[in-house]
Amino acid sequence: MRVTALAGGIGGARFLRGVRAALPDADVTVIGNTGDDITLHGLRICPDLDTVMYTLGGGLSAERGWGREDETFVVAEELAAYGVGPSWFGLGDRDLATHLVRTQMLDAGYPLSDVVRALCERWRPGVRLLPMTDERVETHVVLDDDEGQRAVHFQEWWLRLRAAVPARAIVPLRAETAKPAPGVLDALAEADVILFPPSNPVVSIGTILAVPGIRDAVAAAPAPVVGVSPIIGGAAVRGMADACLTAIGVETSAEAVGRHYGGRSGDGGLLDGWLVDTVDAGAAVPGATVVARPLLMTDLDATAAIVRAALELAGV
Amino acid sequence: MRVTALAGGIGGARFLRGVRAALPDADVTVIGNTGDDITLHGLRICPDLDTVMYTLGGGLSAERGWGREDETFVVAEELAAYGVGPSWFGLGDRDLATHLVRTQMLDAGYPLSDVVRALCERWRPGVRLLPMTDERVETHVVLDDDEGQRAVHFQEWWLRLRAAVPARAIVPLRAETAKPAPGVLDALAEADVILFPPSNPVVSIGTILAVPGIRDAVAAAPAPVVGVSPIIGGAAVRGMADACLTAIGVETSAEAVGRHYGGRSGDGGLLDGWLVDTVDAGAAVPGATVVARPLLMTDLDATAAIVRAALELAGV
Repeated sequence: MRVTALAGGIGGARFLRGVRAALPDADVTVIGNTGDDITLHGLRICPDLDTVMYTLGGGLSAERGWGREDETFVVAEELAAYGVGPSWFGLGDRDLATHLVRTQMLDAGYPLSDVVRALCERWRPGVRLLPMTDERVETHVVLDDDEGQRAVHFQEWWLRLRAAVPARAIVPLRAETAKPAPGVLDALAEADVILFPPSNPVVSIGTILAVPGIRDAVAAAPAPVVGVSPIIGGAAVRGMADACLTAIGVETSAEAVGRHYGGRSGDGGLLDGWLVDTVDAGAAVPGATVVARPLLMTDLDATAAIVRAALELAGV
Repeated sequence: MRVTALAGGIGGARFLRGVRAALPDADVTVIGNTGDDITLHGLRICPDLDTVMYTLGGGLSAERGWGREDETFVVAEELAAYGVGPSWFGLGDRDLATHLVRTQMLDAGYPLSDVVRALCERWRPGVRLLPMTDERVETHVVLDDDEGQRAVHFQEWWLRLRAAVPARAIVPLRAETAKPAPGVLDALAEADVILFPPSNPVVSIGTILAVPGIRDAVAAAPAPVVGVSPIIGGAAVRGMADACLTAIGVETSAEAVGRHYGGRSGDGGLLDGWLVDTVDAGAAVPGATVVARPLLMTDLDATAAIVRAALELAGV
């Protein structure tokens, strides 16, 4: 069974652990979001790719849910002592080594997809992890508050401002000229099933779909496409997806997100199936089959059950 | 009183603490060796400048004698887990933050002397620290052993090979086209006294003097020039200076090193005075006054006494 999943960070990574548990023998390709990527202190940081890599590779902090296990923050402490910011990005020492290796490889001319493959030689996440693109696409957020209208990097909006300042627009910069990384389109064309984990529909899945060719490849794929709602009972399970949805004029509800992706037998939609939580039973997405199941990924068993429900909905 | 000192790493830094103790009100300029500098993991590392900065700024590890106090090695551990070398360079986490700040400033186009000044705003070493040059000069060592004739970076010879493989030559690469950093020549011309601490005469002081213009500026300076022998009783007090001296055909003795620098009233020599340990009393350097005093820098008081002896010998 060939599974291809689009994925953001924490929610996506957790779902993917369920995929591996439910389908231990499957050939899984993950197309990761790189719109959250940022360069800090001269280091190229890819939070979502690393979260998937660490989570599936067994190196994630279970306590924090992001970053590395047994993480320390000595370098960050020193950078602060030098007065070198930003202070709102939690740059761990273990994580930093990954950024050093990546930055050196990128500086040497390797494309990001080669770098990811090299890093995964250590982590062995058990999936083929691909960046959505090898080109630099960074999500910026247009704000308009007391400080005036301006655009900030997604990470600044998310971490420093906690998404509390309303976003007027969320723009994946340079996405329009980016090309899918090698393997991405093939992984969609050759999949037996395509999954949208409960990742952020705007800044994770939405950014991946913004790379020209990817949305079309999903729409044209022979495989069924099933999504799992990141919204349960009108609220994001984690993160601040509501602020992102509001920015693009989509209501924070399982039904609205499903309709945002669109039913595949409808007009340009992507989903054959849309899995919502039992509290959202009754949600309807024209052109897609909506099924309600408990969607809280409380542990690996619960997550694997969600994956099995998605596969059942896909008919594979 | 304006003091200008040439300095390598640990020995030089320790001596400079004595200068500050002996002359708390003096205006001290330190011309630091950058021949030990190396780029590792994409980070520009300046071991000697940092050792002076940390030592005088109170951040040095008293236990190890190099690197930062309360140092940790988490990033290095992770780099090793990625299989990224070299393993022979002890890259501490606190130290790494300094390298990150420096590398970013250099990449942004700042000359090294500006970077050093910026770093010193945090450390406040109480001296004006100047790199010998803003240009990249790196000492390489020519070896000829079982592995054949080859040149390795000084750090590899020093740290990995522990200077145990005889050096056929020690070459400060690109020194011949380097220019002294801003302020270096003025600091020599305007000094009331010029000191050579007991730093390595080959790869520290020798490298500084290899930058065109610096040797001539020392020779032409109106101020007296006094050196302190790093060799006591035929052995280096610390480090492996003997291996360096052997490479350039100089005997490991206080007298031979003094003669290598040369007496100033002799033919092209640099020293007005040469301070040797009491065990080396009787050493003679034509054209310079040789005085014997206890030279072990066992503590700050002993070091300050050595500095006072050097100043006395200089007649200032």
